[in-house]
Amino acid sequence: MKELTIPLESGGKVPLYEQIYQYIKQDILDGKISPGEKLPSTRLLAKYLQVSRSTTDLAYGQLLSEGYVRTVPGSGYYVCRIQHELLQLTGNGYGSPVRMDRWPAGSPIGGAFGWQGSVQSAGCDGVQGAVQSAGCDGIWGNVQSSEYDGVQRKPIRCDFSLEEVEWSNFSMTSWRKAVKCMLQEEMDGLFEAGIPQGEENLRQEIGRYLYQARGVSCQAQQIVIGAGNEYLLMLLDQMLPARAVAMESPTYRQAYQTFCNLGWEIAPVSMDAAGMRPKELNDSGANLAYIMPSHQFPLGTVMPMKRRMELLQWAAKAKERYIIEDDYDSEFRYKGKPIPSLQGSDPYGRVIYLGTFSKSIAPAIRVSYMVLPLELLAAYRTRCGFYSSTVSRIQQQILYHFMREGYFERHLNKMRRIYHSRHDALLQSLKGQSWARQIYGENAGLHMLVEVQTDKSEETIVRQAAQRQVRVYGLGEYSIRPKGDKAKPILLLGYARLTEEQIAEGIRRLQQAIEE
Amino acid sequence: MKELTIPLESGGKVPLYEQIYQYIKQDILDGKISPGEKLPSTRLLAKYLQVSRSTTDLAYGQLLSEGYVRTVPGSGYYVCRIQHELLQLTGNGYGSPVRMDRWPAGSPIGGAFGWQGSVQSAGCDGVQGAVQSAGCDGIWGNVQSSEYDGVQRKPIRCDFSLEEVEWSNFSMTSWRKAVKCMLQEEMDGLFEAGIPQGEENLRQEIGRYLYQARGVSCQAQQIVIGAGNEYLLMLLDQMLPARAVAMESPTYRQAYQTFCNLGWEIAPVSMDAAGMRPKELNDSGANLAYIMPSHQFPLGTVMPMKRRMELLQWAAKAKERYIIEDDYDSEFRYKGKPIPSLQGSDPYGRVIYLGTFSKSIAPAIRVSYMVLPLELLAAYRTRCGFYSSTVSRIQQQILYHFMREGYFERHLNKMRRIYHSRHDALLQSLKGQSWARQIYGENAGLHMLVEVQTDKSEETIVRQAAQRQVRVYGLGEYSIRPKGDKAKPILLLGYARLTEEQIAEGIRRLQQAIEE
Repeated sequence: MKELTIPLESGGKVPLYEQIYQYIKQDILDGKISPGEKLPSTRLLAKYLQVSRSTTDLAYGQLLSEGYVRTVPGSGYYVCRIQHELLQLTGNGYGSPVRMDRWPAGSPIGGAFGWQGSVQSAGCDGVQGAVQSAGCDGIWGNVQSSEYDGVQRKPIRCDFSLEEVEWSNFSMTSWRKAVKCMLQEEMDGLFEAGIPQGEENLRQEIGRYLYQARGVSCQAQQIVIGAGNEYLLMLLDQMLPARAVAMESPTYRQAYQTFCNLGWEIAPVSMDAAGMRPKELNDSGANLAYIMPSHQFPLGTVMPMKRRMELLQWAAKAKERYIIEDDYDSEFRYKGKPIPSLQGSDPYGRVIYLGTFSKSIAPAIRVSYMVLPLELLAAYRTRCGFYSSTVSRIQQQILYHFMREGYFERHLNKMRRIYHSRHDALLQSLKGQSWARQIYGENAGLHMLVEVQTDKSEETIVRQAAQRQVRVYGLGEYSIRPKGDKAKPILLLGYARLTEEQIAEGIRRLQQAIEE
Repeated sequence: MKELTIPLESGGKVPLYEQIYQYIKQDILDGKISPGEKLPSTRLLAKYLQVSRSTTDLAYGQLLSEGYVRTVPGSGYYVCRIQHELLQLTGNGYGSPVRMDRWPAGSPIGGAFGWQGSVQSAGCDGVQGAVQSAGCDGIWGNVQSSEYDGVQRKPIRCDFSLEEVEWSNFSMTSWRKAVKCMLQEEMDGLFEAGIPQGEENLRQEIGRYLYQARGVSCQAQQIVIGAGNEYLLMLLDQMLPARAVAMESPTYRQAYQTFCNLGWEIAPVSMDAAGMRPKELNDSGANLAYIMPSHQFPLGTVMPMKRRMELLQWAAKAKERYIIEDDYDSEFRYKGKPIPSLQGSDPYGRVIYLGTFSKSIAPAIRVSYMVLPLELLAAYRTRCGFYSSTVSRIQQQILYHFMREGYFERHLNKMRRIYHSRHDALLQSLKGQSWARQIYGENAGLHMLVEVQTDKSEETIVRQAAQRQVRVYGLGEYSIRPKGDKAKPILLLGYARLTEEQIAEGIRRLQQAIEE
């Protein structure tokens, strides 16, 4: 590490950690440290600056909490992409980094501070647990709110986002009709206390839908409605005796972060072409497995029946062992017969089925549901039965009418057609590219993966694509175990919010970025 | 304990614990064991029946989870009041006790089983931790869903409920107007991803309201909107380093149960006339205090300024010490000047202010909010910033318009008048009663307390009142520490949902119950 000179004023008004925080922040804002660059470990930095480790911990903690850096488990701290708009905001508005009054507005420290592009992994052994407590604090915590369009801060014109859905085709007319049904029929009862696990009529509708569309076998009394999957995981946390969860690696990071926050031990289990490896799962010691058998996120793997049976047998082998089946986007399948849910094939009653309207309608609707095995109902009632539903009756009744009147099914059919076209357009575009070495996860869901034939790293491609106003996502960000040997970069491309023209243009620009 | 003969079939098809569970359940359903009666401890029962302790634990756990019995910390298991309607339901509908198919429909066991009315406290040392894990599992868990109208199951005609509010006076017209504003103005953006901590415009409105009505001093960026107080406590659980919380005893049981579920150690701190005792708080070792200074639930105590300052100083004395101020019903004050929030008097930035629309509009609206101290914002963003808001944008925008157009204020003024009349009617009725030894908690909120001059126990009065079709609530149910020496019974009387006539009639019937 060269030119490592932060001229710290000890005994001054500004605490040492704030001086370090301020200095690094300014360097990030000035572009002296680029997005994706790795920072030295807090241990190394403390050693170089001759300050205590807790001082550098605090400084990094601050940077982390404000979204300037993020951690990658087992690897270290990386500079985030910061949204252009964010940089122009004052400290007051929402969405800006938290700037408390006691921090000086400008950087109080002069001098040059040259960052090494990467610190060897030997320097990273001290990173884990650097911020406040051990484990997975803050991982990805602020990534969403601090995306950045690359060094030159050009506006992004084509975002292959994995989180958004197409809601501009949503039939507002149907929705308004459902709202009106609600206003006419239910208004008087809407302020009565609701049923904690969700309105009876909505649960009946969901149960019917799940049986028909996903082969889920349940009664309405097994369904719990909640405001988002993460909230439902918080309930499960309070119901399940297990404290360790086996997760696919890579996996859905919101679920990972939630389990981390709740103090669970995470056992990352690797995947083969059929999904989570049963032997590794068995050896993990976990009594809970979180999987996405219908269309794994982010890999897109569809779990074949044989593997499903193996996992179910694992669950049946011990008391109080459960599988969470997150069936987040199985509404969208463009080829072949949809595979019924794992829950529907479970003779042992060990599958907790998790579903959502986030993909099928929009994340903003904030309605998810879980189907509990019968043997968990008692635990739900005892531990969580006193929590009122987090979804208001108004919202539930609108959704009920939306489903009841057939609007939901019509909406799904329409969206399936739209997404199918976009899926085909993306596949088409990719197939013409010489660098597109292999494509995964097609024919279902709202994103696919492409392995890139290149010597560049994922981070480089992501950055260079951003300079061409295209946002793509590296698979590495979703890994929950330390990176292994250098494999070819794999990009995640969500197509839900992009028109066919945007997709074609996006892939053209991506090609330029890869081949530049 | 006499006639203790459950003829257990060992080695039969039905496990021993199910036989015991089934037998006791049947006795409860048949009225052979009455609501309020205490069951023998699992230890004693196991000894008498010559089965293992884990068998009786399981049986009681099942009864507990289905709401047939409840636990009182440090005391034992008591038979719950079961709703009449509940008993008539089949096992399929929602709200019925969970009856899984493998359980035989009728009681498989014959013979008489005489329950002792109460087991001496010597028999209770084994109760704590009897169900699954130690501490506070399942306490009150199912009380709400298994209230019962007394032995003779007459319908309740007058419920002095503490949880309901008067929503029949709610101006549906204003609400409809707010819905229409939302439909007209916001519809197109309603499906875009929302802001995790809540819509900017709604937070601005709430901030303005809190400043004007409660003297809360904050910026919109400090406000986090969530679907209910319990959800916000789940977020705080993930943000705060403390693991022990000091709570007033008696306290709000939903909050108590939530902290228990989340694995917090609870330090019950007693109260004097000014509120939580500072010395006891200081000795508790907790770094978080949960208090209701404006109108303590259930006692109705209003904390004077001096005590507020003492508690704030306690919070300032150590790093990362916080006070949660639950300001659940301070909108309603009928005499004197409202006392500003504790948050508004806090120079140290250690108060987490918790507010809700549950009392001011209705619990069914499912919108609460918290105001974080500035120094907790970073922790919120890092740990919880990735959780999407649990309140849908639709709901938030309706509420925004409802506040913005002045409907909320008008509603509050109207409700204040209505509740004031009911408050006065109740006070008037009580003042004429010779048994009403002392009245507490008047002039604010939506309930008051009355100490009863009688030799009867709280439980007896509650039961006998139910037989006269009046539901009242005993203070003992809200205690979070083992009961001390026998004080006079204290009843909690909520008046929000009762007309003045109902109140007068209810107190007349209560008088008959007390004096019979």
